[in-house]
Amino acid sequence: MDLGMTDRVRPLVEQVRRMVEDEIAPLDTEFQALVGTHPSGDRFQHVPRQLEILDGLKTLAKERGLWNFWLTDSDRGYGLSTVEYAYLAEEMGKVGIAAEVFNCNAPDTGNMEVLERYGEQWMKDRWLAPLLNGDIRSAYVMTEPGVASSDAAQLALDATRDGDDFILNGEKWWISGAGDPRCAVYIVMACTDADAPKHARHTMFVMDADTPGIEVLRPMQVFGHDDAPHGHMHMRFTNVRVPAANIFLGEGRGFEVAQGRLGPGRIHHCMRAIGQAEKALEMMCRRGLAREAFGKKIAELGANFDIIANARMDIEMARLLCLKAAWMMDTAGVRAAQPWISKIKVVAPLTAGRVIDEAMQLHGAAGISQDFDLAHMWTHVRTLRFADGPDAVHRRQVARAELRKYQNEKV
Amino acid sequence: MDLGMTDRVRPLVEQVRRMVEDEIAPLDTEFQALVGTHPSGDRFQHVPRQLEILDGLKTLAKERGLWNFWLTDSDRGYGLSTVEYAYLAEEMGKVGIAAEVFNCNAPDTGNMEVLERYGEQWMKDRWLAPLLNGDIRSAYVMTEPGVASSDAAQLALDATRDGDDFILNGEKWWISGAGDPRCAVYIVMACTDADAPKHARHTMFVMDADTPGIEVLRPMQVFGHDDAPHGHMHMRFTNVRVPAANIFLGEGRGFEVAQGRLGPGRIHHCMRAIGQAEKALEMMCRRGLAREAFGKKIAELGANFDIIANARMDIEMARLLCLKAAWMMDTAGVRAAQPWISKIKVVAPLTAGRVIDEAMQLHGAAGISQDFDLAHMWTHVRTLRFADGPDAVHRRQVARAELRKYQNEKV
Amino acid sequence: MDLGMTDRVRPLVEQVRRMVEDEIAPLDTEFQALVGTHPSGDRFQHVPRQLEILDGLKTLAKERGLWNFWLTDSDRGYGLSTVEYAYLAEEMGKVGIAAEVFNCNAPDTGNMEVLERYGEQWMKDRWLAPLLNGDIRSAYVMTEPGVASSDAAQLALDATRDGDDFILNGEKWWISGAGDPRCAVYIVMACTDADAPKHARHTMFVMDADTPGIEVLRPMQVFGHDDAPHGHMHMRFTNVRVPAANIFLGEGRGFEVAQGRLGPGRIHHCMRAIGQAEKALEMMCRRGLAREAFGKKIAELGANFDIIANARMDIEMARLLCLKAAWMMDTAGVRAAQPWISKIKVVAPLTAGRVIDEAMQLHGAAGISQDFDLAHMWTHVRTLRFADGPDAVHRRQVARAELRKYQNEKV
Amino acid sequence: MDLGMTDRVRPLVEQVRRMVEDEIAPLDTEFQALVGTHPSGDRFQHVPRQLEILDGLKTLAKERGLWNFWLTDSDRGYGLSTVEYAYLAEEMGKVGIAAEVFNCNAPDTGNMEVLERYGEQWMKDRWLAPLLNGDIRSAYVMTEPGVASSDAAQLALDATRDGDDFILNGEKWWISGAGDPRCAVYIVMACTDADAPKHARHTMFVMDADTPGIEVLRPMQVFGHDDAPHGHMHMRFTNVRVPAANIFLGEGRGFEVAQGRLGPGRIHHCMRAIGQAEKALEMMCRRGLAREAFGKKIAELGANFDIIANARMDIEMARLLCLKAAWMMDTAGVRAAQPWISKIKVVAPLTAGRVIDEAMQLHGAAGISQDFDLAHMWTHVRTLRFADGPDAVHRRQVARAELRKYQNEKV
Repeated sequence: MDLGMTDRVRPLVEQVRRMVEDEIAPLDTEFQALVGTHPSGDRFQHVPRQLEILDGLKTLAKERGLWNFWLTDSDRGYGLSTVEYAYLAEEMGKVGIAAEVFNCNAPDTGNMEVLERYGEQWMKDRWLAPLLNGDIRSAYVMTEPGVASSDAAQLALDATRDGDDFILNGEKWWISGAGDPRCAVYIVMACTDADAPKHARHTMFVMDADTPGIEVLRPMQVFGHDDAPHGHMHMRFTNVRVPAANIFLGEGRGFEVAQGRLGPGRIHHCMRAIGQAEKALEMMCRRGLAREAFGKKIAELGANFDIIANARMDIEMARLLCLKAAWMMDTAGVRAAQPWISKIKVVAPLTAGRVIDEAMQLHGAAGISQDFDLAHMWTHVRTLRFADGPDAVHRRQVARAELRKYQNEKV
Repeated sequence: MDLGMTDRVRPLVEQVRRMVEDEIAPLDTEFQALVGTHPSGDRFQHVPRQLEILDGLKTLAKERGLWNFWLTDSDRGYGLSTVEYAYLAEEMGKVGIAAEVFNCNAPDTGNMEVLERYGEQWMKDRWLAPLLNGDIRSAYVMTEPGVASSDAAQLALDATRDGDDFILNGEKWWISGAGDPRCAVYIVMACTDADAPKHARHTMFVMDADTPGIEVLRPMQVFGHDDAPHGHMHMRFTNVRVPAANIFLGEGRGFEVAQGRLGPGRIHHCMRAIGQAEKALEMMCRRGLAREAFGKKIAELGANFDIIANARMDIEMARLLCLKAAWMMDTAGVRAAQPWISKIKVVAPLTAGRVIDEAMQLHGAAGISQDFDLAHMWTHVRTLRFADGPDAVHRRQVARAELRKYQNEKV
Repeated sequence: MDLGMTDRVRPLVEQVRRMVEDEIAPLDTEFQALVGTHPSGDRFQHVPRQLEILDGLKTLAKERGLWNFWLTDSDRGYGLSTVEYAYLAEEMGKVGIAAEVFNCNAPDTGNMEVLERYGEQWMKDRWLAPLLNGDIRSAYVMTEPGVASSDAAQLALDATRDGDDFILNGEKWWISGAGDPRCAVYIVMACTDADAPKHARHTMFVMDADTPGIEVLRPMQVFGHDDAPHGHMHMRFTNVRVPAANIFLGEGRGFEVAQGRLGPGRIHHCMRAIGQAEKALEMMCRRGLAREAFGKKIAELGANFDIIANARMDIEMARLLCLKAAWMMDTAGVRAAQPWISKIKVVAPLTAGRVIDEAMQLHGAAGISQDFDLAHMWTHVRTLRFADGPDAVHRRQVARAELRKYQNEKV
Repeated sequence: MDLGMTDRVRPLVEQVRRMVEDEIAPLDTEFQALVGTHPSGDRFQHVPRQLEILDGLKTLAKERGLWNFWLTDSDRGYGLSTVEYAYLAEEMGKVGIAAEVFNCNAPDTGNMEVLERYGEQWMKDRWLAPLLNGDIRSAYVMTEPGVASSDAAQLALDATRDGDDFILNGEKWWISGAGDPRCAVYIVMACTDADAPKHARHTMFVMDADTPGIEVLRPMQVFGHDDAPHGHMHMRFTNVRVPAANIFLGEGRGFEVAQGRLGPGRIHHCMRAIGQAEKALEMMCRRGLAREAFGKKIAELGANFDIIANARMDIEMARLLCLKAAWMMDTAGVRAAQPWISKIKVVAPLTAGRVIDEAMQLHGAAGISQDFDLAHMWTHVRTLRFADGPDAVHRRQVARAELRKYQNEKV
């Protein structure tokens, strides 16, 4: 169980780290400052400089071969293992636009995974190729406003057969990335047979983002932020006609596709969250050494040694657990790795949230202000406690896996 | 130690509760939706409808005699005790603009307290009267960007004597309420003798907000929000000339004034935070009963009974502690009540934050969105862990008070 | 809602505190040292000096009128309120044998309550009178080894009608106080109709401890301690014949009696646990000031200020919650106070356990040794998380009470 | 960074696991039941059957070559890495006498390490050889009653030069293993120059246990247990004469020896604690599936899924952190691994304590009784929060290591 950095990945990590720190971070600041400045007033339109920043960095990354690392265990790209990728993803997690610069950002990687794994050739030609090239972006359209999505069997967006097509009607929300004008393709989970057994009710469709009848109602806000131009959109489907050919695996197999997609996606989020925690701890230490109160460095006051130590211990443990989950994916496959993915899916956002919260507190009021990135990091990792399943659902999975060891029948 | 609702305050609580729920809450929603819609693009300008809402409600409250409850232990207004006021403040905490409607909002109450207690008659005529009438608003100008404000002795905004005046130079930030165009008076803590003993260095000034040389640099953001039009402003003082007559108590007595001010202010924040926790628990229960997953009400799933029970227990304890601190203020005075105020100052924001966080989690992603008030409530109570002193400083006070019981010399 | 010490109870608290500290504590140490020294080797036999200590102190207490305080709201004794009693019980909690000295110890108070409230005159004459006088002791025989007692409907000790008698068969365990040779009466919950509705299956009997067929199998151990000579006994009933007249309230009404009994008993445990927490905090402070490391007092090192402050805040909140539960019992009755009793039943043992644990840690290894009372205090409060219902069951009660506010039907 | 079980160690782990479960566990029960049954009444004397059990099992283990695994990175024994040893130690942690059966028990391994690393040949012949063979046992004599041992520079047992000898005077306590009659050698830290710089004051001596002048005052108790016949003894040294030749490394180098000793010893404790946590989780699951309440398996009630999941996640993280610390020792040496050892030294006992506590709670009162091993496991891991340095000291080490990354000067 080698969880260390391999010789192969070490120089890549170093290159990525440097590029993130030296080249991406300053431009990220500029990029974020430009959000919402489009003359139209539309916060989801990029101004030219934003695209220039993104395209420039992406071109640079591609030229350097720092591209599509996430394509693990594949003969395309580096063929990195998930463990190796974890070290890269951690670095990318430290700056907002970094993951996209290396074409390793959510939700595109998950969607590419679906297209790669379950897509027919024509789908790959049409959508996977430009996604792999970073030319377009994508969205994964699953969550719905009307039901507790933790129980995915309740998802209700209706898809009714009509000749060679399906007609889709209903609402979806929290569709991340759908705000981006470059988002060109949707992968949509819809209910094709509400009376079927629980895990055969849904079907996974793929379609162009500009398919008629799909309407963005509003951006959902995360602690008041619309995360423009990426966005988490609330959408309505009204008589959206999609060819039956646009289905992954077959009617009623939506759950299977969803499960295959979510494993890697979940763990990538965790890797990046650990990067954020690491960054927060660094900020906490630097601030603790830089400021004084009552004649001492803040780091030396009160419980701050304990707080710093706890942060360090928690991060190390979360990272190791994440690496082990990655190693399970590499060696036993996504399915067998599920309880491990659930574990880190609970642990990483909680750990990162706690460390960032302590970092904010040690910074004083500055810590929650625009002068530091901590508040934004915190709200982001807070969303991860819902995204791809709330903590409670993952804890339930872990417990059931544990109890199954002692009992053959289902608990 | 009667911590209950008295017969005198009970009908007032009922009236306030009804007015908050039935009349203020709907208009608060309208008010908040109008923030940032001023044609000038200046988010800190009210549009007429906003002022109409505020003035209308304030007039109504005044007509009903629901006004200036915070003036405890006084022959003006109701002469309520702090314990009695706590029950009212809790209700006001549940809706954004409610406290202002009853002229019980921060930072005005604290500033009125200073003017009432330490102000000369001309100060009262000029600033206290219109504040008590709700005609103007005020700001308390203490925190600085360059120093850890937890150690207030470090505050550095310079006030140098020049004839009958002082000349002020320096920066302040997180000046809450200074964004509001109606804010007409500042109470400013400045350093008049950096070489004096620690608690004799500072002096508390009062001045018109439009005194020349005071410049608002920018609004500070709280998790990305500017809280317009109230705001938490970053300000610069450049050769601001203030008459020496505008000093409370006398040169070098700024700490004394600050201490007198902060006690009640801190506890009012706590009371309102408990109101928010109570509201979050109600939302959690309602949502838990309204939604289903896996064939059960969400409230009945997993650890949710425990989460609800813990929230209820934590809120009850925080409320009782708050009431006891209030009772200490009423019976032993602000100074003797300090360790009690420190206790609740730590407990109430942490408790409210935890309950609101759980409520968000039970709501699923909706919980952090604009569809519910929870995210806004959370960011607000998170600021209370810094405002008026960070948790660590208050814990330190509590510990020192505890240890003093066993040792005469200072620890 | 007066939660303070009344003028009536204040001098009693002072008297009890002094007697506990000055007279009982030293003899308690002597008493405990004598445990297990009976020549017979039977750890549950007192040596004469132990009885001399107990009887001497009890006589003293009785002479001073410090006796049977727990008889609240009664024309016998003081007629104290439960709130008033709380302050006394807290003091008694600080030393092992103190509660018995004042005839206020578990399980006798609960059993006297049952006899007083539900007993017929002959029962009162036979068992209540000597109990009130401190001449005999009693046990409450409910918990069973074979079932999860948290669901009391499962209790299985069988009572079968045979003429004018019932014949009891089965096992009970954790029968506290049944080890004491002075224990003369048992109150026993038995199943008289396993097919009846859930809360009508059981009946509450009273019988002499020496009724033939009752056999003590062994003492149960608490973290390895048998708590001799009090003990928590594992017992077997073999064809134990009890007259049908020895039933409280009537056949099938055992639950009703149990509920009536458990309310006060639970809260008395909580009051004493708070006394223990208070004592642990005092020990923590004294030790923190007495010892040095790295050139500083231990109290000033690391997170110790925070630990002390948290302990103080937690204790205050637990005490206030306990007082409010007591006040609810006084003003609304035991039944209405149930959710409040559940709250403090969860909070007090957890709080006390946490404070004692921190006190142990601050003492270093000495803290868990025989040189300090902390380890014994910790194991005792740990038992309270099971006794009279585990935390989970009480949290469940609190949650259900909370949810009922929003829904008429049962959750 | 291979943290997995190697092919080399896997069959050993399997053999050890089986022997622990099938052969040692039943005899451990018998062994423990015999404690305190010696006719002399001396709890620290073995009865013959106890020695028969120990010797029989040790002979068996030796015959099977399951012996001295802890001798890592050595050409004697297996030459296992610390990572490999971790997997073995975890299994040994699950049953009381198991570690001794394989000659891998504390404090002997640490003491053998000292003799091996710092001992002269005659010391090895005299004490190391029989220790390696399991013929004698040893004690490490460091902690003192009069000072906070967390600051070891305060240790005061006096060693004064007298010709070719040193004369030792003073007290030590918590000397684990010194109760065992087979304990034949002491390694003793004494102060040879109280005026020297902090880390040059002490010297490490080795001596026969029966050196005149050493007196056992009493066994220290751990939550009331004397842990006989192993014991944690309180000892007095009165004019104990030890040759100057009996010093490790040289006068004033006691700290160096102590540091070299404590690294491995600390981590071995952690490995075994993780074994105990794993065992507790298994017990929790089995009990949760075996019992019912309210018509459901206990495992399915309330928050139990979450509790089980949290236990599983916490154990995995603690194990990974422990393995990483072991790997650091293997690859970077004990000194460089110090902050890692401190991390797991904090984490493992806390994690194990939490899991065992939850397991007790899920068992109901039975969980703290003699019917399950949980209470004993809990008190044992609780001692680990003091042994070899309290949590606070280790957190301090971790924080200082963290802060040093950002600052050259000492914090």
